[in-house]
Amino acid sequence: MSSKGRMTVPIEAGMDYDLMKDILERWGADAVRNSDGTDLPDQLQEMKMKVYSTYFPTRNDQLWAHEHPDQRQQMYIMTPHTTAVEESLQIELMKGYYREQLEVDYDHDPKRWWEVINRTTGEIVDPESWSVDPITGIVTLHQVNRFHTYTVTFLVWQIWDQTQMYNHITNQWGDKPHEIPYDARHSPTWAHITEYMKDWLEANKHVDVVRFTTFFYHFTIIFNELAKEKYVDWFGYSTTVSPLALEQFEAEYGYRMRPEYLVDQGYHNTPFRNPSKQYRDWMQFQHKFVCKQSRELVDITHQAGREAIMFLGDNWIGTEPYGDLFPSIGLDAVVGSVGNGATLRMISDIPGVKYTEGRFLPYFFPDVFYEGGNPTAEAIDNWVKARRAILRKPVDRIGYGGYLSLAASFPDFITCVEQISDEFRTLYERMNGTKAYTPKFKVAVLNSWGKLRSWQTTMVAHSLWYKKIYTYLGMLESLSGLAVDVEFISFDDVLESGIPEDIGVILNAGDAGTAWSGDDYWANEAIIACLKQFVYNGGGFIGIGEPSAFMHQGRFFQMSDVLGVDKEIGYTLSYTKYDQENTSDHFIMGGQAKPIDCGEKVEFIRSVSEQTQIIQMQRGDIAVAANSFGKGRSVYIAGIPYSPANSRLLLRSIYWAASAENEMSTWYCDNVETECAVYLETGWGIVINNSQDPQRTKLYKNTESYIEVELKPGGHEWFRVDSLTK
Amino acid sequence: MSSKGRMTVPIEAGMDYDLMKDILERWGADAVRNSDGTDLPDQLQEMKMKVYSTYFPTRNDQLWAHEHPDQRQQMYIMTPHTTAVEESLQIELMKGYYREQLEVDYDHDPKRWWEVINRTTGEIVDPESWSVDPITGIVTLHQVNRFHTYTVTFLVWQIWDQTQMYNHITNQWGDKPHEIPYDARHSPTWAHITEYMKDWLEANKHVDVVRFTTFFYHFTIIFNELAKEKYVDWFGYSTTVSPLALEQFEAEYGYRMRPEYLVDQGYHNTPFRNPSKQYRDWMQFQHKFVCKQSRELVDITHQAGREAIMFLGDNWIGTEPYGDLFPSIGLDAVVGSVGNGATLRMISDIPGVKYTEGRFLPYFFPDVFYEGGNPTAEAIDNWVKARRAILRKPVDRIGYGGYLSLAASFPDFITCVEQISDEFRTLYERMNGTKAYTPKFKVAVLNSWGKLRSWQTTMVAHSLWYKKIYTYLGMLESLSGLAVDVEFISFDDVLESGIPEDIGVILNAGDAGTAWSGDDYWANEAIIACLKQFVYNGGGFIGIGEPSAFMHQGRFFQMSDVLGVDKEIGYTLSYTKYDQENTSDHFIMGGQAKPIDCGEKVEFIRSVSEQTQIIQMQRGDIAVAANSFGKGRSVYIAGIPYSPANSRLLLRSIYWAASAENEMSTWYCDNVETECAVYLETGWGIVINNSQDPQRTKLYKNTESYIEVELKPGGHEWFRVDSLTK
Repeated sequence: MSSKGRMTVPIEAGMDYDLMKDILERWGADAVRNSDGTDLPDQLQEMKMKVYSTYFPTRNDQLWAHEHPDQRQQMYIMTPHTTAVEESLQIELMKGYYREQLEVDYDHDPKRWWEVINRTTGEIVDPESWSVDPITGIVTLHQVNRFHTYTVTFLVWQIWDQTQMYNHITNQWGDKPHEIPYDARHSPTWAHITEYMKDWLEANKHVDVVRFTTFFYHFTIIFNELAKEKYVDWFGYSTTVSPLALEQFEAEYGYRMRPEYLVDQGYHNTPFRNPSKQYRDWMQFQHKFVCKQSRELVDITHQAGREAIMFLGDNWIGTEPYGDLFPSIGLDAVVGSVGNGATLRMISDIPGVKYTEGRFLPYFFPDVFYEGGNPTAEAIDNWVKARRAILRKPVDRIGYGGYLSLAASFPDFITCVEQISDEFRTLYERMNGTKAYTPKFKVAVLNSWGKLRSWQTTMVAHSLWYKKIYTYLGMLESLSGLAVDVEFISFDDVLESGIPEDIGVILNAGDAGTAWSGDDYWANEAIIACLKQFVYNGGGFIGIGEPSAFMHQGRFFQMSDVLGVDKEIGYTLSYTKYDQENTSDHFIMGGQAKPIDCGEKVEFIRSVSEQTQIIQMQRGDIAVAANSFGKGRSVYIAGIPYSPANSRLLLRSIYWAASAENEMSTWYCDNVETECAVYLETGWGIVINNSQDPQRTKLYKNTESYIEVELKPGGHEWFRVDSLTK
Repeated sequence: MSSKGRMTVPIEAGMDYDLMKDILERWGADAVRNSDGTDLPDQLQEMKMKVYSTYFPTRNDQLWAHEHPDQRQQMYIMTPHTTAVEESLQIELMKGYYREQLEVDYDHDPKRWWEVINRTTGEIVDPESWSVDPITGIVTLHQVNRFHTYTVTFLVWQIWDQTQMYNHITNQWGDKPHEIPYDARHSPTWAHITEYMKDWLEANKHVDVVRFTTFFYHFTIIFNELAKEKYVDWFGYSTTVSPLALEQFEAEYGYRMRPEYLVDQGYHNTPFRNPSKQYRDWMQFQHKFVCKQSRELVDITHQAGREAIMFLGDNWIGTEPYGDLFPSIGLDAVVGSVGNGATLRMISDIPGVKYTEGRFLPYFFPDVFYEGGNPTAEAIDNWVKARRAILRKPVDRIGYGGYLSLAASFPDFITCVEQISDEFRTLYERMNGTKAYTPKFKVAVLNSWGKLRSWQTTMVAHSLWYKKIYTYLGMLESLSGLAVDVEFISFDDVLESGIPEDIGVILNAGDAGTAWSGDDYWANEAIIACLKQFVYNGGGFIGIGEPSAFMHQGRFFQMSDVLGVDKEIGYTLSYTKYDQENTSDHFIMGGQAKPIDCGEKVEFIRSVSEQTQIIQMQRGDIAVAANSFGKGRSVYIAGIPYSPANSRLLLRSIYWAASAENEMSTWYCDNVETECAVYLETGWGIVINNSQDPQRTKLYKNTESYIEVELKPGGHEWFRVDSLTK
């Protein structure tokens, strides 16, 4: 099959035009874009493609930046914890920071805007008792408690845009000037941003689609003195800080935003922390600002007859695609990088835009496209992971990035992407805007962030692997492609409005003490009573890792009566343990050929009741268990790194917890390496092979009707729903 | 060599007398004892042995127990956490308990003595709102919060002595009557105990040594409804409870001892918990009582011309061999079971007695002495572990227990014990009451219990293996035989009197949240400043597992600046980690052929400074590290299960942390499987082989003088100190 459209390809001047045209045609491209360091070719008009161009609202006029240093972006950073060993203490402000990225702000009175804290006691040090020397950049605490530990939180100017810095250093751009980001919150800067944009649109008539990359504030990237990455928080609001913003915040919210509320003991409000009220307020304060100003730029774009799309990344802070104000920006689309199924859903589920676009991997960069490299394998892996998520909720377009000329010398790769783009278009067409079959009940992921961090739970840097989190990311990755409707709800949602009627199963997954598990929300009796009642009345509760963990009144897992298990943290070793597998053939283990791989998290889980169904033990501890509570049910899984097998465990756990195991065979593949999606409204169904081996599976319409399907490695087979007759 | 004495052997009537005599002679026995279920033979007088007899002060007159049911021993127990699903809640008191062990006490007013607690809120439930039915044993809470969880703490009578119950059930003693323990706190019972003892001494003239087994209160053993072990705390004070004691406590301490202070959320004040003030008061209250009354029994024993020795176990609660009042009991000796080096030191280090005796393993019981069994291997393993501890501080006698007739049919075993007893006597003689060489500085184990739990840290049931603790028990086991002087100090000691001058290195080892690590003591600024000052001025600090762990002001390990490492609990994932081994040939790794086995505890340890010397990483996390802080040094070890190699790591870590690595070669064996002990005052030295393979080692007097020693498996070689000349 050959088809066309829904495909954006990076092109470049200087590449063989016929070769380029051939690839564009084979891939069915209908839009082109430039990339960092490439120009669009002259033949644009002849090509009759939509043309995308990146746009950087807060750094594309460096003249402005240099002429208005007081309107550069800022940040609060904190020195390392420093222990006093004498009666006074000197702390070097920029120690461990990269002086080409950040510069101490002495312009705003340090005594007013900075904060020195005794980290042994938690007390603020009286500003009268410390001083700062702008020449040396050293703060001297004149009177300290010996062997107490201190930090200084101070304002800096950002003197290098974080994305440009990263690309500059990574690609060794040499003496190319550093771009400085300016702050849209300053009225003169804002006026300039809007005027500059109008001029740019006028000057770039060939551009059809303005790809905002992105708006005003970059996620937090801080480099160290060796110009290497020191701190990366894809969700961090550090760059939104300025005395102006702090003053406006105080005027609006009626209290002073302490530096400590932002640097947060050096944790900088990582999303792994339960968010403080102050930080939530700050986020909302910036969300309002960013959405309002973005709306103006989008309006200008529309007035110029162009589309406005937003890149999900870089300067996306404050847009909050799942925040309440995001739709008010009025964007046509969001485009984002697709690392796997979860990141695809993070894009495709965004409300309030006309369409979404996924930029697939690999990037056409020399790190993958080198002689002897295998970009095709990466493309297939990326596609197979994304495909199962697309079947649940598709992006509307796909695309790639980088240097097409590099990709052109890998014919296998060109063919592979041709197949992927055809497969995508067929998929999209046969879905035709309808939703695949899912059971009636919904699944809710419960944590401290809820909807705002939809498909973003337990994530650190965008889709990178971390030993500490892969065990949990597997839950998200599994859910991204499972045939269930997923919502993200917060403990505050539960407090405010209880548990929505249509929720059948609640998932709580994370390490103790984190926002993903819930930390001290689990000491809130209203939350506990509400959740227990939900299960008692027939709901399902699935806990992964350290669900409901908060040491309180004799229990660590506050839902231990529901889960049937608790974690041994050392206080109950005197209780003799008789735990052994007593339910090895449990429904949730259907189709599993091997024991579940629980990743990092199998440790010291014990049963709290003889009723607990112990499904899998590992080195003496419970890894998988199930329980019932009233009319409801629960499943405990110690950890769930992503694999097709673990994904299936989760699906069956969901059905079982929802007491819906009788419906399990409704559109179901018995081979765990395979999945199906069925579009009853279009009459199409598809079976996919998530593995790189050939597979055979039974595809069930129900317990009585099935067909056998053979699948190639990573392959798929379409079928007509009415071909299964019973 | 053949020698005699310092050896106690169990004997029994009915065994071939000549065989018995032969074994006693070969083993050099000078004392005999009976065992449970055996009688002493008639030829006692002819044998000219010292005769030991067990004595049970609180259960040896069951007539008294039955005639004074109001003076039986009691206990507070707690029902399981029970979640209310209706407006009222019924809780069955004895659910999960063994009705032949415990009986609900309805005689003392439940409304006064019991406590019903809402475990969701932590609040006490008004006694007016619940009632108890003595017929059904059910407590009804008439008005509850739905989906809150409740417990009932209630008084029970002990109707079966815990040791007798255990032996009775284990050995299937059938209809043998259950023995009921009575409470020495009741005046009539106390008068009876003393009179009965006087009569018994009069009636048992053949007994030379009264082996108290033990005094008044058994450590906590609770069985479940299936007559199986439910709860065992070797340190538990549960059996000391009675309304009389509670009333006396209140009179003396001026506040009411709430049931909750004793059941402690169901944790029953496990030593893994930081002890509350109330629990400490209760322990001291009982310690005073137990020591005072014990002293009376010891006096009676002495007045009858007998020795009084105490078995360290069973009814030892309140004696507290490392408590301040223990010496006041006036015992001649303590005898205890030797499971390994740490338990040997727990016995041999007890102050205030004339001598100590270790009962070695295996017990002569059919579980080991069966056809095809290998009791010899167990005896050698036990001896080799105990030997290194004996070299530091010997028990004064050794012995065995069980049925000698069983052992007699294992000629290898008889020979093995002959060798062990000879080896022990030679050892003892050549030590001649002197102490082996140790460096000048002392090592202190720092935890919340300090001296009171000397050689008892991280222990659950006496020397049993638990996955949760073996990683830490290895530290204690290592220390028991290392050539360093060890003290146990508490955080309260540090607060009261700082760190003693002679301490060179402080060890802090345990899981976060436990009394072994210290939990919230690490939020105490005085402790932190004192310890940091200690290290800064040249002291050593060794942290194992989760040392100084308490989440506070941006750090989990509060000594992270000293240790150079902290634990990632999820809040600092955004900090890029560059940790890699940078000091693989560190001094502390001397002699190690393989990477250190850190047991269960290698997880998510990261450096907090570039200065940190990362010595071993494991799966991406730090397992072993070192650091310096001022003039002092620190070592971090993720976990240290016992092995000769890990023991050596600890020794070298201690020397390094003490900045004494130049002294390391003073009386040192370079082969980690071997150790030496040198008695400068007697001129003897010994090299031991802790492995079951032949070993060769260099034995250093100093860096310039050494000899080579060949050792048989588990063997030893004596040498004269002056044979090393330089």
